[in-house]
Amino acid sequence: MSRPPGRKQENHKISRELFVLTYGALVAQLCKDYEKDEDVNTCLDRMGYGIGIRLIDDFLARSAVKKCRSYSETADVIAQVAFKMYLGVTPSVSCSSAAGNEFSLILDKNPLVDFVEELPAERASLCYCNLLCGVIRGALEMVHLAAEVTFLQDRLKGDAVTEIGITFLRKAEDRKHKR
Amino acid sequence: MSRPPGRKQENHKISRELFVLTYGALVAQLCKDYEKDEDVNTCLDRMGYGIGIRLIDDFLARSAVKKCRSYSETADVIAQVAFKMYLGVTPSVSCSSAAGNEFSLILDKNPLVDFVEELPAERASLCYCNLLCGVIRGALEMVHLAAEVTFLQDRLKGDAVTEIGITFLRKAEDRKHKR
Repeated sequence: MSRPPGRKQENHKISRELFVLTYGALVAQLCKDYEKDEDVNTCLDRMGYGIGIRLIDDFLARSAVKKCRSYSETADVIAQVAFKMYLGVTPSVSCSSAAGNEFSLILDKNPLVDFVEELPAERASLCYCNLLCGVIRGALEMVHLAAEVTFLQDRLKGDAVTEIGITFLRKAEDRKHKR
Repeated sequence: MSRPPGRKQENHKISRELFVLTYGALVAQLCKDYEKDEDVNTCLDRMGYGIGIRLIDDFLARSAVKKCRSYSETADVIAQVAFKMYLGVTPSVSCSSAAGNEFSLILDKNPLVDFVEELPAERASLCYCNLLCGVIRGALEMVHLAAEVTFLQDRLKGDAVTEIGITFLRKAEDRKHKR
């Protein structure tokens, strides 16, 4: 009872720059550890997955988001609530399949690469921000949504925007053993 | 000139949880890479140094802090402005030497360890947050203040508080070649 109710945590917000530079140190370390870009990408995705499965509780508790009724609604929540909450940006969302299970999150500006000029020539296949894909994948899995999450475009590689593709793999209704 | 003056950066703040979990992934990776805790500590300090020497520009630009006139003032700025800005907490400061060049930053709560229960038994010498020491050391060096920065107490190791010790090593006036 050292703090009044409603202010039980002093401040959830931190300055982005420290995070961005720390993330850069993480990627640099993995580039030392692994010769192949693909291995770095896999490792970042795996780390992100581990973060996502823990972050989802924080997200659900703080966002007060209710159960999504469609893949489209889920994609909107990721972009408008989760990205805003955790990275301070809001990607635009587009549905990219007739089946309605593929979405793109499009970032005009990627906050994770503030201090990154461009990828070194020998790291042309590096998905610098691949941690984000893992975070999304892990968080979705914890709400029983299997998805593939990958970078489709990346400004660091010369594309006009940064685009994260999310493909939902099966209906939540598969889990018939639960209500 | 694509954005109006005064709003040139959309949002400097992000949620702390993503940072804390990403930092945890970084430490875990280093624990895989290095068998000895001392090597992990050194690596975290070195990474932090690299971050500090880049972060100082951001800090000076955004804090509008003027030149400090004493070590005591510098320690206060680190605690009250820099920690507040980057980690959302404000450590208390105490001077711990008659010579006036040793200070302690005392954190009742360390935001970097939100998701960490305790250190594994085989990692008893790990300075989990050693990156912070490197950041402070690097940033101080860029304003021509040499310092030793180390953890003196750590709640993760069972201490009552987390305490970062800063020992300033020489006077800024040594730089006589500059005004």
